[in-house]
Amino acid sequence: MTPFSLKLIATGKALPTQKVSSDELDKRLNKPAGYVQKRSGIIYRHHADLHLTQAGLAGQAILNACQNANLSLSDIDLLIAVNGVPQQALPSTASHIFAHLNWQGAGYDVNASCVGFLPALEQAGALLNMGCYKRIAICASDLASRGLNWQDDETALIFGDGAACVILEKGTDNDGGLLGFLMKSYPDGIEYCQIQAGGTAKNPKTGMCEDDFYFKMDGYGVFKKTSEVLPAFLDNLLNTPKNPLTIQKIDLWLVHQASHLGMSHLIKRLGIAPQKVINIYPTHGNQVSASLPTVLHEAVSTGQWQQGKTVALVGTGAGLTLAGAIWQI
Amino acid sequence: MTPFSLKLIATGKALPTQKVSSDELDKRLNKPAGYVQKRSGIIYRHHADLHLTQAGLAGQAILNACQNANLSLSDIDLLIAVNGVPQQALPSTASHIFAHLNWQGAGYDVNASCVGFLPALEQAGALLNMGCYKRIAICASDLASRGLNWQDDETALIFGDGAACVILEKGTDNDGGLLGFLMKSYPDGIEYCQIQAGGTAKNPKTGMCEDDFYFKMDGYGVFKKTSEVLPAFLDNLLNTPKNPLTIQKIDLWLVHQASHLGMSHLIKRLGIAPQKVINIYPTHGNQVSASLPTVLHEAVSTGQWQQGKTVALVGTGAGLTLAGAIWQI
Repeated sequence: MTPFSLKLIATGKALPTQKVSSDELDKRLNKPAGYVQKRSGIIYRHHADLHLTQAGLAGQAILNACQNANLSLSDIDLLIAVNGVPQQALPSTASHIFAHLNWQGAGYDVNASCVGFLPALEQAGALLNMGCYKRIAICASDLASRGLNWQDDETALIFGDGAACVILEKGTDNDGGLLGFLMKSYPDGIEYCQIQAGGTAKNPKTGMCEDDFYFKMDGYGVFKKTSEVLPAFLDNLLNTPKNPLTIQKIDLWLVHQASHLGMSHLIKRLGIAPQKVINIYPTHGNQVSASLPTVLHEAVSTGQWQQGKTVALVGTGAGLTLAGAIWQI
Repeated sequence: MTPFSLKLIATGKALPTQKVSSDELDKRLNKPAGYVQKRSGIIYRHHADLHLTQAGLAGQAILNACQNANLSLSDIDLLIAVNGVPQQALPSTASHIFAHLNWQGAGYDVNASCVGFLPALEQAGALLNMGCYKRIAICASDLASRGLNWQDDETALIFGDGAACVILEKGTDNDGGLLGFLMKSYPDGIEYCQIQAGGTAKNPKTGMCEDDFYFKMDGYGVFKKTSEVLPAFLDNLLNTPKNPLTIQKIDLWLVHQASHLGMSHLIKRLGIAPQKVINIYPTHGNQVSASLPTVLHEAVSTGQWQQGKTVALVGTGAGLTLAGAIWQI
């Protein structure tokens, strides 16, 4: 991949107002006190009530980013709407966002499960550098709570809802940009994370049951496969064309907030300094595709997004799909 | 948008083996002889049996394109999987294609209802020209038959299933490329075309019924809104940066095969010479996102895709979304 310039203009985020604490879940699920927090690693996560739409939450994140940039919607030339699960089978979530905001925009959806933000970032960079658009917004949104099976501790306890938006321009050569990008699918992991209904596979014509609408995960499978392939994947990602990097040369790690065990294993296994990893998991949970841009928003909000830093964005998603990008700020 | 080079290496397509003739539907639906063909404008369409998966059909189209280019899957650096409706809510249809083909590839889904092929084409062009990838496959697939309500003549009769793939490289300056691209959403048309279930909006938690899984269309609404906005949209599309075009200067029209009435109205209203428009609708129907690349494959297969021609690709999709591209071959 050719490195190219990319300038982060602003970020924004949105969370449903309803906080669901692990203490509250202990009671709701008839568990001993402290069980849910210990099992999930989460203090609280946000879950949308049934009136909130995915496009509504995404719209809040977009308006928040626009406000932070002193821009209006008409200043955005393209919206890339990222989601792990869309609002409807048809039309696109981008269309629903346009309708929610009453915005005659241009845009489409990108989906790569939990890591869709990363190919959207590469696309946006390429489109901006080719002069196709002046300013692009990427907004990732997911309402994971709509697909949780409360009978299944391994999955139901770790997810939170959310949306986050970044606004990008080409910038100048001094603004930094993407140094590297890598994505790879490991199809023997296709069954590790699934919601089987929702498309052409399971529906009234082919047969379906309530269970097909719930998120199912083989956590051990994900863990084992990720442990097996991640070191070589990272080596390839860090081997950027002009200036090969090492794990130690990365100043800031923005990782998909998959689970507390997954993240702590990654940090130990790869020898990453924990203080370089942004961790919002205890107060957000795994927000599917919204995790990565929410972490980026956190980096900006807390002043850790600073010019001169070399940032690695990395995640694992259903598929099994690995994706990563190196961003020189 | 900056014009950029783009070289079509090969195309491929796949159709389910099962042909459903309009005569057969007359009998199945207890209609008088000739009713379905007159109403739909279709002689026959292809519908998948319940064992065929969307990824299976997409995989056939990809292998067909690879064969036509004398390439193997390992020669494809990125797969952009386009669909109107995905195979499952999670993971991406790209992941399912990788699993079906046992291919450790890189890729993601793009969704803009019926016109997703066009933003995928612009993205692919930008990514190739920025040197991010050497060779990109775009494969659009849809199994519309899985979402048809046979009680609803307006929608059930006009759709067919299919998949089509194009393989692209940057090419040289002599290979032509994209001269223009335009996409726009008209959100007052959000309810004209919908499948409401399948995502976070309608599911077991929020409430759903069988009807929510079927495609619903306000055909008159689509027609009225498209008629209103298309002329100005086309003017903007044809007003390419370096060499503004007119409708008469377009040599070949590759249009989304929405319906026979929609297409014939478009041709008359805009004063397009009918022989310049590729029409596969009578034997394919509306194949949702697979229509546009299937039409492109038809142009290549019939020798109408010739160097020096200026081609317009245009379509209307749910949302309501209009998209168009100008390709100088």
